[in-house]
Order: sequence, then C-alpha cells, then structure tokens
Amino acid sequence: MERKHSAVGRDIQFIDAREKVAGRALYLDDLTLPGMLYGKILRSPHPCARIKSIDTSRAARLPGVKAVITAQDCPRIKFGLDTPDVYMLAVDKVRYVGDEVAAVAAVSEEVAEAALSLIEVAYEPLLVVADTSAALAPGAPLVHDDKPGNIAKTYRIERGNVDEDFAACDYVFEEEFSTSLVQPCYMEPFGAIASWESNGRLTIWTGIQAAFHARAEIAKALGISPSDITVKVPFIGGGFGGKIWIRNFHPIAAVLARKTGCPVKIVLSREEEFLASRARVPAAIKLKLGMKQDGTMVCKEAKIVADNGAYSWAAPKILLNMSMRTDCLYRFKSSRTESTLVYTNRVPTSGFRGYGNAQMHFALESMVDICARKLGLDPVEVRLKNAVHQGDRTLHGWKLRSCGLSQCIESASRAIRQGRLPREDRGGRIRRGTGMACMTHVSGNRGGNNFDGSSAMVRFQEDGKVLVYSGESDMGQGARTVFAQIAAETLDLPMSQVIVMPLDTDVSPFCYGTYSSRVTTVGGKAVLLASRQVREQLLQLAGKLMGEQPDLLDIKEGVIYARLDPGKQMTVAEVCRAGIRTREAAGLVAYVSYDPPTEGTDSNFYGDYSSAYTYGAHGVEVEVDTETGEVKVLRVVAAHDVGFAINQQGVRGQITGGIAQGAGWALYEHLVHQDGMPQNTSLSNYIIMTIKDMPRVEPIIVETNDPVGPYGAKGVGEPTLIPVPPAIANAVEDAIGVRIRDLPIAPEKVFWALHPELKEAGA
Amino acid sequence: MERKHSAVGRDIQFIDAREKVAGRALYLDDLTLPGMLYGKILRSPHPCARIKSIDTSRAARLPGVKAVITAQDCPRIKFGLDTPDVYMLAVDKVRYVGDEVAAVAAVSEEVAEAALSLIEVAYEPLLVVADTSAALAPGAPLVHDDKPGNIAKTYRIERGNVDEDFAACDYVFEEEFSTSLVQPCYMEPFGAIASWESNGRLTIWTGIQAAFHARAEIAKALGISPSDITVKVPFIGGGFGGKIWIRNFHPIAAVLARKTGCPVKIVLSREEEFLASRARVPAAIKLKLGMKQDGTMVCKEAKIVADNGAYSWAAPKILLNMSMRTDCLYRFKSSRTESTLVYTNRVPTSGFRGYGNAQMHFALESMVDICARKLGLDPVEVRLKNAVHQGDRTLHGWKLRSCGLSQCIESASRAIRQGRLPREDRGGRIRRGTGMACMTHVSGNRGGNNFDGSSAMVRFQEDGKVLVYSGESDMGQGARTVFAQIAAETLDLPMSQVIVMPLDTDVSPFCYGTYSSRVTTVGGKAVLLASRQVREQLLQLAGKLMGEQPDLLDIKEGVIYARLDPGKQMTVAEVCRAGIRTREAAGLVAYVSYDPPTEGTDSNFYGDYSSAYTYGAHGVEVEVDTETGEVKVLRVVAAHDVGFAINQQGVRGQITGGIAQGAGWALYEHLVHQDGMPQNTSLSNYIIMTIKDMPRVEPIIVETNDPVGPYGAKGVGEPTLIPVPPAIANAVEDAIGVRIRDLPIAPEKVFWALHPELKEAGA
Repeated sequence: MERKHSAVGRDIQFIDAREKVAGRALYLDDLTLPGMLYGKILRSPHPCARIKSIDTSRAARLPGVKAVITAQDCPRIKFGLDTPDVYMLAVDKVRYVGDEVAAVAAVSEEVAEAALSLIEVAYEPLLVVADTSAALAPGAPLVHDDKPGNIAKTYRIERGNVDEDFAACDYVFEEEFSTSLVQPCYMEPFGAIASWESNGRLTIWTGIQAAFHARAEIAKALGISPSDITVKVPFIGGGFGGKIWIRNFHPIAAVLARKTGCPVKIVLSREEEFLASRARVPAAIKLKLGMKQDGTMVCKEAKIVADNGAYSWAAPKILLNMSMRTDCLYRFKSSRTESTLVYTNRVPTSGFRGYGNAQMHFALESMVDICARKLGLDPVEVRLKNAVHQGDRTLHGWKLRSCGLSQCIESASRAIRQGRLPREDRGGRIRRGTGMACMTHVSGNRGGNNFDGSSAMVRFQEDGKVLVYSGESDMGQGARTVFAQIAAETLDLPMSQVIVMPLDTDVSPFCYGTYSSRVTTVGGKAVLLASRQVREQLLQLAGKLMGEQPDLLDIKEGVIYARLDPGKQMTVAEVCRAGIRTREAAGLVAYVSYDPPTEGTDSNFYGDYSSAYTYGAHGVEVEVDTETGEVKVLRVVAAHDVGFAINQQGVRGQITGGIAQGAGWALYEHLVHQDGMPQNTSLSNYIIMTIKDMPRVEPIIVETNDPVGPYGAKGVGEPTLIPVPPAIANAVEDAIGVRIRDLPIAPEKVFWALHPELKEAGA
Repeated sequence: MERKHSAVGRDIQFIDAREKVAGRALYLDDLTLPGMLYGKILRSPHPCARIKSIDTSRAARLPGVKAVITAQDCPRIKFGLDTPDVYMLAVDKVRYVGDEVAAVAAVSEEVAEAALSLIEVAYEPLLVVADTSAALAPGAPLVHDDKPGNIAKTYRIERGNVDEDFAACDYVFEEEFSTSLVQPCYMEPFGAIASWESNGRLTIWTGIQAAFHARAEIAKALGISPSDITVKVPFIGGGFGGKIWIRNFHPIAAVLARKTGCPVKIVLSREEEFLASRARVPAAIKLKLGMKQDGTMVCKEAKIVADNGAYSWAAPKILLNMSMRTDCLYRFKSSRTESTLVYTNRVPTSGFRGYGNAQMHFALESMVDICARKLGLDPVEVRLKNAVHQGDRTLHGWKLRSCGLSQCIESASRAIRQGRLPREDRGGRIRRGTGMACMTHVSGNRGGNNFDGSSAMVRFQEDGKVLVYSGESDMGQGARTVFAQIAAETLDLPMSQVIVMPLDTDVSPFCYGTYSSRVTTVGGKAVLLASRQVREQLLQLAGKLMGEQPDLLDIKEGVIYARLDPGKQMTVAEVCRAGIRTREAAGLVAYVSYDPPTEGTDSNFYGDYSSAYTYGAHGVEVEVDTETGEVKVLRVVAAHDVGFAINQQGVRGQITGGIAQGAGWALYEHLVHQDGMPQNTSLSNYIIMTIKDMPRVEPIIVETNDPVGPYGAKGVGEPTLIPVPPAIANAVEDAIGVRIRDLPIAPEKVFWALHPELKEAGA
C-alpha cells in the first residue's frame, strides 16, 4: 500500500533513541539537586501486626541522618483512589510485608540504610488473612476494621436474560480458571525527588505515567492544594501500569524534604518493587458458557473472586474491567458477572498492562477452545462465527466505529499454519502444537469520569520550529515520537523542526495520563487538533504577507507556497518571525482541550466509553518437553487492529514487548505468598522472560482507519499482552492434550497433568 | 480618593518579598548543577594591542582545569545588536581593558582563577584612542579597521525650520554640557550557567532582562537556532538596563560547556562588571535654545558627541533617544540634532536606566534654568508655560493620550517650597537652594521594530488557582507582583490564588523584555487581556453549570454568584474543576499576544511609537558646604505621572531607587579613564550613593489614567532617575550661584567654581 503521508505511518526512529542508547537520557535516579538527601523507608516484616512502639532515637543519632519520621510526623490523612484506606506511614497496625512504617533522610543511601536498622519497632503479630478464602471465611479477622467481611468491592452486572438464555442453549460448559500475582518488573525502579521551593511550592520529580493525577493525589495525601505542587517527569524506564499512580513514597519524600529543608530522593530497591508495586490483581474465575450446536456463543456467566491485597488502589476499577470487557469480544446475547474483591494480608494489587481485562481473557479465550474441542469445532471458526464487527453496538453498549477482529483472526490463523514445525520430535518427547486467542481492549476510558480527554499546546517559534506540549507521559513506549510525527504531518514540517517538551504540570496542558492505551488516540488527537489550529493561523498570516488566499496556500517540508503559483513561496520560519515579532503577531499558538465523542457509561456501566476499541488475535506455536513439562514458545503471530500505525517500528516494539511480558506471565511469573509472606522478591527467584526465552514474533499490522483516532490510529499499548496466556494455554493443549487452567503454566503443573498416575502414586 | 479596586491601586507587598528577605530566593549564583564547572575569563590588560600569540598549555595542565579556550575554539561569528562588531573571544586584537581573550572551565573558581594566570599572551601594544577627540582627530588610529573615522553612528534629525525660527527668536542661548561614564552597579553581578541537554539543546540560566532577545543573540553568537536554546531566568538582583542584553560570557559559557560536556557557571566579579558592563554612554552636548521674551521656548539645536567605547551594542539606539526625546517635553516649534557616536579604546557603553534620554535631560533641564535666570523669569513658570499637554501631538509625532506634566510641575514646586530650610547656615558656610527639573520618557518602544508587544498566558488550575505566564523579566522592580495584581483584579480572585510562573523561554509566551519602562504597560496589558479572556470562559462555563446567563454572573473573592440572586453561587474552584476535568472542559486558558495601538516611526524617526509617555517633575533642596564644595541633597519631591499606580509601594520604591541612582550619578559617579586605562574599578574608589547620603524622598503620585495602559497605568522604571541630575544642578546654582555643566557635580568642581581666583593662583 502506497503511503500518502510523510511523517506518520512510517518507520521513524524514536526521537529520543540516540539519547537513550548513548546513556545521555536522564532518568529520575540520574538527577541530583544541590544539598539533596537520600530517603529510605522502613517496611513491615510482618503480614499483620500491631505496632506497639517505635523508637527512632538511635537512628536519629547516627551521623549523617537528617530526619527520621513516623506517622507522628505526617498528616493523618488516608489517601487512595476510590477507597482511601492507607496512611503514608502506618498508624498502629501493619497489613502486609512491605507496609511503610518509618522513613529516614540522610546524606547517603548507605547511611539511610544503616539508620533503618537502628529504628526499633515493637510489633505484636496478629492473625494473618493469608488468602481470599481465609478472608471470606466466617469470623475471619478483618484487614481493615471498617471493611466488614474483608470486602473491598463487589459488582453484579447483568445484560439480557441470562437464565433464560442458558435454558435455551444446546450446551452449557463450566470451567474454573485462576491467574497469578505478578509484578510489572519495569527496568527502572520507581522513585521521586521532593523539593520545597523558596515560594513554598513543592516540586516532585518522578517518572510517573499520570502526572496530573499524581499532583492531585500527592496534594490529597499532604493536605495541600494541587496548584501548590509541580510534578516534573524525567525519562521513564517502563511503567506498564505500575507507575500510573503515586505510591506512599511520594508524600513521604515530601514530608522528609519539609522536615530537613533539603531535597530528598527516594528510589525503590527491586525488593521493594516486588513488595510495594501493587501487583496485577490475581483472580479466581468460574466461567459458564452457553452455546448452540453450531458454535454460536449465546450467553456467559462469570463469578470472580479477586485478591485486593492489604490496600485498595485501582483494584476496584480492575475488577470492573475484568467483569465486563470480554463480553464485547463476541456477540453474546446475555451475560452476568458477579465479582468480589477481597482484602488480604498480601501485597496490594492494582493496575498492570491489561488492567483486569487480561485476567478474564485468559479464562474466556481458554474456554472458547475447550468448548470448541468438546463440540468438535475448529476454534478459529468458532471465533470467526461469533466475532463482533464494525458497526456493532456490543452487549455493554460499545459502539464499534472500527473493528478488525475477523481480519486479525484470519490473518493470524493463516500465518501460524504456515511454516509450522512437525508435531513431534526426539521420538515423541517433544510435542508441538498451535493455539490462538483473541482480544479486545479500549483506547481511553470515560467510565467513572465525565472526562476522558487530553489537551495539547502547539506553539511556533520565531525560527519556524514548533514546540509541542502534552501532559501525557512517555514511559518508553514512544508517545513523544508519535506526538512529533503527528505535529510534523499536520504541519507539513520535517521532523527535525518539531520539539516535544518535557512533562511539567506547571507547563504542560492538563491531561489524564498514560493508561487505558489512550495516549496516541486521545493525547495524539489533541496534538493533531492543536497542530491543525496553528496551521490555520500560520496560513492566514502567510496569506496576508504573500497576498494570497490562505486556502490556496499549502506547506511542504517547511515551505509555504501558493498552489496555483508554486514559485510564490515563504518559509515557515519567515512567516513565524512575522507572526511572533511583528505587528501581525498573534503568537502562533494553539491550546486545545479534546474530549472524544463518547457518551460514557450509565450507573449500570452500560455505554460507549472509549474513543476506540482495539481487537487482535495471536497465533502461537509451542513445544512441550514431555519429560520435564517445560513449555517453550516457538513463534507468535500477532495480528493487531491498531487503526493506523503512526509509527510502524513503535507498533512492532509494542507487540514484541507485550508478547515478552505476556509469555512471562503465562509460563513463569508468580509472586508466591506463604501465610502472607512473599517468598520470591528478587529477579533471581521471580523468573521473567529473557532474550533467550523469546519466541520469534511476527507482527501483523491490521489497519481499519478508525474514524475518531488521529490519522485513524487506535491504542496498542496493552492489547499486545492480553491474548498471550490463553493462546499459549490453547497451544499447549493442542500439543499434549492437557489443559492448564491456572497461571503460570509451570513445568511442574504440565508434568503432573501429563502424569497424573505418578502424582497419585506420590512419586 | 476612594479606590474601587481590590487588588490594583493598593499597597500590596511584593509576592516574593518574604522569599527575598528570608534569603530563600535563588539567584543565579545560588544555583548548582551536578558536575558543574566554574568558568573564568582572561581579559586584556591593554586598551589596544595586537595579540601575537596565546599559549594555553600551562593552564590546561593545571589539575582541575577541564578546558581552556581561545577564539580558535569559538565560532568565528561577529555578533552585536545593530552593528555586529565583537567576537566572543578576541581575534588578533584587543580594544579595551577588559576585552575577552581566553576562558577557562575548572572544578572551582579558585582553580579557574589560578589557570588564568598561567595563560601566556604575547601582546604588542598599539596606539590608544583614548577619547572621542582623539578618535575624531584626523589620521587617528582606527579602533575597528572597517569603521572609518571611528564613527559608530551618526544622526541628523530636524523638525520644522530651525534656522528661520532661531532668526525670529528674541534670545538665543548656547551652552555646553557633558555627562560621565557610569555603571549601573546592581547588587547582583551578572552571570550565566550553560548546560547542553541530552537532546542536544542548550539551557542557559541567567538573570537577564530580555530573555527572548538573549535566546536569539546567543543563537547568533553560536551559529545555532533560537529554538535550540532555552533561557531560564532565576531571581534577578537588579538590572537597570545593564542586563537587557547578553554579554560575551553567555556564549563563552556555552562553548566551555560543550567542550567539557559539563554545565559551566560564569559569574562576573565586581571589577569585571566595571570593565565589561557596557556603561552609560557619556555625551558631550552643545545646546542652543531659542526663546521669546516671555519665556516661550521656540526652537532647539543640539550637537552631540558620544563615546561608544570599543564595541557597539545598544549605543546607537541610546544616541537616537538622546537626540530626540527631550524635544517632546515642551512645545518646541522646531528642533535639529546632529549626533555622532565614536569608537574609542574605552569600555563599551550601552543602555542604562534612561537609555540616552537622561543625558539630554541633564543638558536641557539645566539650560531651561540658565535661560530663565538670564531672562529674569521663574523657571517653574517657564516650564509650565511650555509644557506639553494631553491631546498634544509632539514635535516628533508622539500622541499624548495622557499627560500630567503641568500637574507634576505644580505639585512638585509647591511641595519643595514647603518646609524649606534657611538659605544659609553655619555663618554662611552652608548655603541651601532648591531646583527643579522635568522629564518625559516612554513606556514601550516601537522604534526600529514593527512589534512592541508582549504576550501572556493565564491558565486556571483544577483547584481554582490561576497560573500567569509572561516572558517579561522581573529584575527586582516588582513585575511579577504587578502581573499577579492585574490577574487577581481582572479575575476577582484573592492574590493568594494567583501564581506567577518563572520565566523560561520554552514555556513563557514570547515577549520583548524588560526595558523602555514597558513591562507594566505592555506586559501588564497582555496579562490583563488574557485574564479577561479566561474570565469570559469561566463565566460562560459557570453559566452553563448554574443555569444562568453568563452576563448576569459576577465574581467576588473567588466565588461566582448570580447578580440578581446572590445566594446562587459556585466557587471558582468548582467551576474550574468542571472546566478542566469534565465533558465541558476547554482548558480554561487564554494566550494573548498584545501590541499597543501605536503606529511606529517612519524612516526619519517621526511617529507615535510608545504605548504611553510619562512625565514628571522633581523639586530638590540641596545644601553646599562652600569650604569643601561638597553638595548634599536634603530632600527630593518627586511628582510622577504614572497613569495609575498598580502598586503604590512599588511606585514609591521605584521613585526612591531612581533618586538614589540619579543622585549618585549627579554627585559622585565617574569611571575615570587615563589613556584608555580605567582607574577606579572597585566600589572603594568608584563611589555610589549609600544610605547615609540619601535625601528625604517625598513621592507624589499623579494619576492621569492612561487610556491604553492596564487600569490606566504607565511605566515608572526609568523616569524616576532622569530629572535628578539637572534638578540638583539647578538647586546648586540656586544655593551658590555656580553652574556645573559637567557631571558629576564633584566637590572639587564646585570648590574651583566658587574660588576661581584660587585656581588661577595655582593654590
């Protein structure tokens, strides 16, 4: 397909690639302020205990220690997202291993670390709520006294007449699935520097995904006003949802900075990240599917029990997504979900790439294969038969303005069939199989808010370069490059004339942040509209200066020319100079607040609430070593309807990354708790994908040209991870006839499933 | 007079007063970046010499030295304002004592200083052009080979028929005056930190008055694009015109930073400030005044020879102001000025509070008294008789939309007569007298440019606070406070809800900068218009939310209410939250580029080119010790037409400061050169006003409510200094009958004038 664009739809190197590769890009931990101190946090070693006393005096006397704080020194304010349930430092009680108890600021990390060991806390261990079953048991101890039954959140969402539909179905299948507690494991541990300015305002440097949310939340935790805080975002080394929201260390750094009168930096250790990252919400899912003989999926019922851990942040929102989104993958007639989020004395859980949706996809997309197999149908055909299409209004009210699901299924299944390896090898020890899974996700999210917008400012400089301001974070995924491409394309400028400004809440236009795979779709659209507005201004002025009708002018590579008399030219720089430094000046700047034309959801969560909906299908080929139970993913064909690929290289990168992270979750990752004690909090015993384990990835970019997204684009951040675990589980069954229903698909599970007789024999 | 305003027209403490008084405000030298180096500049010890060789090898070997640069390491680009005539480091030749020859970056100031002494420069001293007479002498050596006759600039400006008018006058008087070379002596020496960012852009921190000009000039000197530079302005400890423009150290710091890969800070020493500050242009003025018997001033002729020093920066513009502005103080029928700016091997000269206008005021306002005395008329009456008035179009085309000159003359002369001390004391040794002088000045300047505007952005935050962005510097005069007052007033918010952002060229709207007493008038007007726009947006949205007609809503102290139903209320914060985080959001932001409704000047410098024109009159009382010749200023009554005093305290501060600086110039200050060698480059031998010498100051604020300025305000920065020297000279003559025509009015001059017989006798 010939491309008509010059800056979008291309393989353009990320604008900050060189900085990053050369090691010049500054991440939070690269920043140093004069007089800066280092903060460290003392965390609870107990899953549940009463704090009887804290003695900080020895720590405070250690040379180099500038402050030691406990809850006594902090505003007594509970903060949180939906459910404020956490103090920045624990008051009276700790609720998980990692709970923040005290903090130190000192002249070096080493001194701060040493001071932690001198803080004497007397704990009285309490009964531990070790898992969701324990939490829900009658008479269970309460994690929070004001949360009866340890219930953090429940939903009951029903569309259509589920009971009637189940009664009318040819077949009803029931299965149970569960997903593990996993951490995002971004390369750069989270951190912050807090500094109180001479005018009394607070500056926070932090590599956060949602800077304006952070500003509001830090303000809430400190009991001050958002405008009294500036959040500045340096380069971010990955976020994956784990850096959307603030953590306790943000306000803690601010309190330490206020107490010492110095800037304070806190950067988490990897172990702290495992404890206090707010992991992916683990879920136990009972799924019931009603089908017709011909493979039509009619109705669906799900019962979810999910683990909130000790404190609630976004977990209720995650539960909501888990309860609904997969219903919009196929043309279900009815659906009912009852879901419960439960407090336990385990690490807190929250959002992580897929944001709840991934968990239910594992269940449903495993289920589709199980049912198709039982009915003797081709799972690919079942998916195609039931797939939603452009123009559909889904069960929950989504309006599918674009939808490439069938196209993704077809191209992925075709591609995975090609070049398939033999089904057996090494005399049958190695078995191979293929599997598929589909996905749907949002590109933005109006649910719960009545704003899902973004703002952008685009401002010409007197030399014809253009500054682009957005409040959406680039966590490494390439948002800044996409913004630059959109501005360059819209303004017909070379990429070198576009400068994307760093994120600073005092400067950047108000944005909701980088989550819900919304940055390109919503943030990029705001950049597009602002660019278009400033282009209009530019051409109006050029028309005046050149004596031409503005609508007869065009721009090419930074030169404005008359379409009917192309020799008549002025450079953009010349016009800009006039637009900024002459009588005609109007500043050549546009500030646009954009909100997508979605309606949001009603009180029952029905409605069209995302700018666009993404669809995709992965085909995977695996091999299983039947002697060890080890699963190796050989190949993933990943077809994604991205609407339009603004940056092809960026889309391929997202696909590869999502597969790495999804396959890690599918095969290896699990933060194991034993009676509330996390067991594997380092990268030596919590195993993630490495380059050695990576399958061959074949991205297939499907472009449906969404009518709302900028240049037709939709989000691609989260979608690429979502279908990976069920596709692998389906391929494993194809290879060895064994169905694994709980993640991860670890060798021991496969082995025992292959050899139930040995297990029974107690081998 | 009862004030109808809540935030303007009041005595409001500067918003940064506490920060400054508590020592928390960060000036350039308070800033430290990680890995920062310290730069020092080697300067020429010769007024004129050929550089035969430079050996930097010993300096480079000194431990701690990171770079030593000479012209070899710098772009070979001449930069400058009107006349690019200077390299950042001297090429082949030095032209004044202080000329930049080489520079060093090292780990500390001490090491850098030590390294300077190890740089070996072989000079061949050349003939020195010691003053303007030497420069203009036939066959004089040339300061610049390409400037024949050492002429930097000439003007010949004539209005009306001067020769005819002189011929028709009753009296023609001729006098000669001269002014001294003086430095602004702001408290904070000038400096910069240069840092190349990871993306290849350059950040310059510098306490400069005109940040966007600086960006363009540094770009020019380095041969890069303005958008590749960010200028950030910390607190400024005074500028007085001496910090409008960049100095050589700005690009030098950038070259050192590029060479070392580290940020480099250069802060000038006080001695360097005396050498390389670009002093007030000294002028020798021949003045001819044609008058009628009744005191009517008919025509004026001036011949000016002014000293440019070794390099030209703004001196040509200064010469132009000197040549014209006083012609608009009185209703002259005609005028002719021939002026010449001359290169010498003395320190470069440029703009300093009054910007040329002050020099000619000394001549003209001395002359008025001399002539009145000769005609036996009251100088006050002469001034009143000739004063321009509101509605006048002056000789050079100024349109006086407001003019309080007569009112200033009357109130100052009345006030200075009251409470006058006896004319004699200590048996006649002490003689006292009073004098007056008037002034006019601009509030903005379109001359030479076709833009005299300013831009502002005003942006609401979700908590109802408002951020104000301007690219105009606050050099200590209170611009940020005035902007905050204007925004608070226009938006009916308490001052505490207004936050004025720091100046950063990547963020702040484009502005011309803080000079020509334009910041309140032009910058403030942009803030007013942006505030008004955002207020409209706010009320529109509030109307929608409250179900009211927006034009029936009003705001008081941060609360929006329905005028007809005042119980119906929403706070500004509530509406802002809706305007930023809801479906209705439009961002609540306004970006306004404002250009005053002036026409500019034609090629002959005729035209209305300032937003407003300020007028004032000072009455002073002095006493002269006839035995020592010492003059003491007892009292200054300073009446200034400021249009409207946005901040009364600020206006009084400007008046007091202008008088301190003006009286220092009048009585003490003079950077003496001997054959090109500056003689007094420290504050121990270059004497400025101290608190001990300060007269009692009685400010009289005259308000004429200018129709263009914000809330009627006009500028007051420069005006307060301008009339001080002639008023003192006039008072001295009133006291002792002696006329001093050349500044400063030093004791020895007064003494010799009182006792010519002793001088003749060679006493």
